[in-house]
Amino acid sequence: MNLKQLAKLLGLSISTVSKALRDSHEISAATKLKVLEKAKELNYQANPFASSLRKQKSKTIALVIPEIANNFFTLVINGIEAIAQEKGYHVLIYLTHELMQKEIAITKLLQSGRVDGILLSVSSHTSDIAHLEELRENGIPLVFFDRVIDSIDAPKVTTDDYNSGFRATEHLVERGCKRIAFLSLSDTLSITNKRMNGYLDALKKHSIRHDENLLLHCNTDEQKNKEAIRKLLKRKNKPDCIFASVEMLALNTYEVCSELGLTIPGDVKVLSFSNLKTASLLSPSLTTITQPAYEIGREAASILFKLIEKKGFNFILEKTVLKSALIERDSTKTKQTR
Amino acid sequence: MNLKQLAKLLGLSISTVSKALRDSHEISAATKLKVLEKAKELNYQANPFASSLRKQKSKTIALVIPEIANNFFTLVINGIEAIAQEKGYHVLIYLTHELMQKEIAITKLLQSGRVDGILLSVSSHTSDIAHLEELRENGIPLVFFDRVIDSIDAPKVTTDDYNSGFRATEHLVERGCKRIAFLSLSDTLSITNKRMNGYLDALKKHSIRHDENLLLHCNTDEQKNKEAIRKLLKRKNKPDCIFASVEMLALNTYEVCSELGLTIPGDVKVLSFSNLKTASLLSPSLTTITQPAYEIGREAASILFKLIEKKGFNFILEKTVLKSALIERDSTKTKQTR
Repeated sequence: MNLKQLAKLLGLSISTVSKALRDSHEISAATKLKVLEKAKELNYQANPFASSLRKQKSKTIALVIPEIANNFFTLVINGIEAIAQEKGYHVLIYLTHELMQKEIAITKLLQSGRVDGILLSVSSHTSDIAHLEELRENGIPLVFFDRVIDSIDAPKVTTDDYNSGFRATEHLVERGCKRIAFLSLSDTLSITNKRMNGYLDALKKHSIRHDENLLLHCNTDEQKNKEAIRKLLKRKNKPDCIFASVEMLALNTYEVCSELGLTIPGDVKVLSFSNLKTASLLSPSLTTITQPAYEIGREAASILFKLIEKKGFNFILEKTVLKSALIERDSTKTKQTR
Repeated sequence: MNLKQLAKLLGLSISTVSKALRDSHEISAATKLKVLEKAKELNYQANPFASSLRKQKSKTIALVIPEIANNFFTLVINGIEAIAQEKGYHVLIYLTHELMQKEIAITKLLQSGRVDGILLSVSSHTSDIAHLEELRENGIPLVFFDRVIDSIDAPKVTTDDYNSGFRATEHLVERGCKRIAFLSLSDTLSITNKRMNGYLDALKKHSIRHDENLLLHCNTDEQKNKEAIRKLLKRKNKPDCIFASVEMLALNTYEVCSELGLTIPGDVKVLSFSNLKTASLLSPSLTTITQPAYEIGREAASILFKLIEKKGFNFILEKTVLKSALIERDSTKTKQTR
């Protein structure tokens, strides 16, 4: 049932029926009633594409994220979806699988007007940002969250990565750690650099010499990561603690420790940025820096809708920083604290 | 830059430019080249809504799921997304949060032509299926996965729920369990019933009397679920084993056991349907029935695209059943097997 068929059945022009459905003042109340009743009877619904074309609004936003099998991003999605539902918007989800080429293809695709705005968290392999600059220059409402590009003028919602890295490292120093390894996903990501700077400054404050060999930049291949962690933990001068800047690397560390017969926290302590629901049920329970993921999603979506609603005024350079929490558990306990 | 502006800049009619872009035989090669070069120079892209309206295709599919912070569904999404990317399709994600009213609102919304097809896993609170029957009757390509409605004629992709329930229960009986509690999310879900029938038949086979009091139908409120599990485990005649038909209830059981000072598997054994990445790292590691979630996503999406491509022939009543695996870990060990 389309508009043309509906008009034909009513014996009215398409334009009259369309105006009646939009409650136009040009149409009499009697005609409107007649049209609405017929439309209801026939279960007529406006074609969303015709409607989008007329209003120049897609009522859709895009969410571009590196991966979905990750507790942080699923909680973010819940937050975004809550706001989108309130606004009557649809959410398209695109996964880059941490690849720059996919991110480029997706952002290219999104410039054709399919969506009214974009929420994006940068892939760990994004080394060239021309495609993101292009997106920004084309004026599509855009909000970065978690993994951001500082040099691009768009609103950003993050957590206090530097402070969290600093606090986590101080916690480890207080627990007697002297050789703290820092594991990250990529050395180009904003979150890696901020978390690592917090780590380095905390070492400096406590006069612990920084050892370059304790920085491990991993990637998305879990087997390779485990191999690298294995090597690290088999060294003569091995670390007494692993600080994982992403959840996956903490889980890989647990697996490698179990393989090598190393006990946590006895032989090596472990701390991780993580939104793992099972952190407290692990053997041993994992000390985490837990991000306010749901709130990050809500906040990023709220800012995006501000941009969408005030089109033309979208030069808001809002930087929202939500605080993460350090949750101490058994993986960083000392004999004394047990 | 829209088609009108492009035509004006070229000094050609809109219709000529449109035909040239579609490589029509009515347009000369020279004009086509001129149009394509200008379009490229100006980074012109066809408006997807105009294009959808013309082709009556949205190039979009919808995925309707109960929740996203769940390892099974995130793996399913990865599988669906892989196929959608191959086909050049966009994926809209809708969460019902296990509520029938949300499911009804979403399916209503999706009937207006916004999507070319729908992948759906039913919410645990769906007691009336009129909205799903309507979807089917309106001829929109529809595939159910995991949580299905058997009475609706649409393709279904599931795992071998009955067999898995049977095998899991036999495994527990072999481990010496006599009072096996069965925890589920809802008593109307297809997966609950099949898994529970497997459980009941395995008890019968091993001549274990079925005790109604050992069936616990929970819901989505984790606090209430934990309260119900607490009560169950504090009974005089308490179960010696918990068989959780969904992951969340196994984690709630772990939390309650830790609270009550009950050891797993000493005081109570635990087994669960689960795609938890950390199952092997829990304290103790969790025995699971692990579903082929990624493959379920791929398969469901593949069938949906078959339906979309052969519109009018969409009465495929395919039932695809993929096998789950029983993975034995410490949560069901006996002293002898340790």
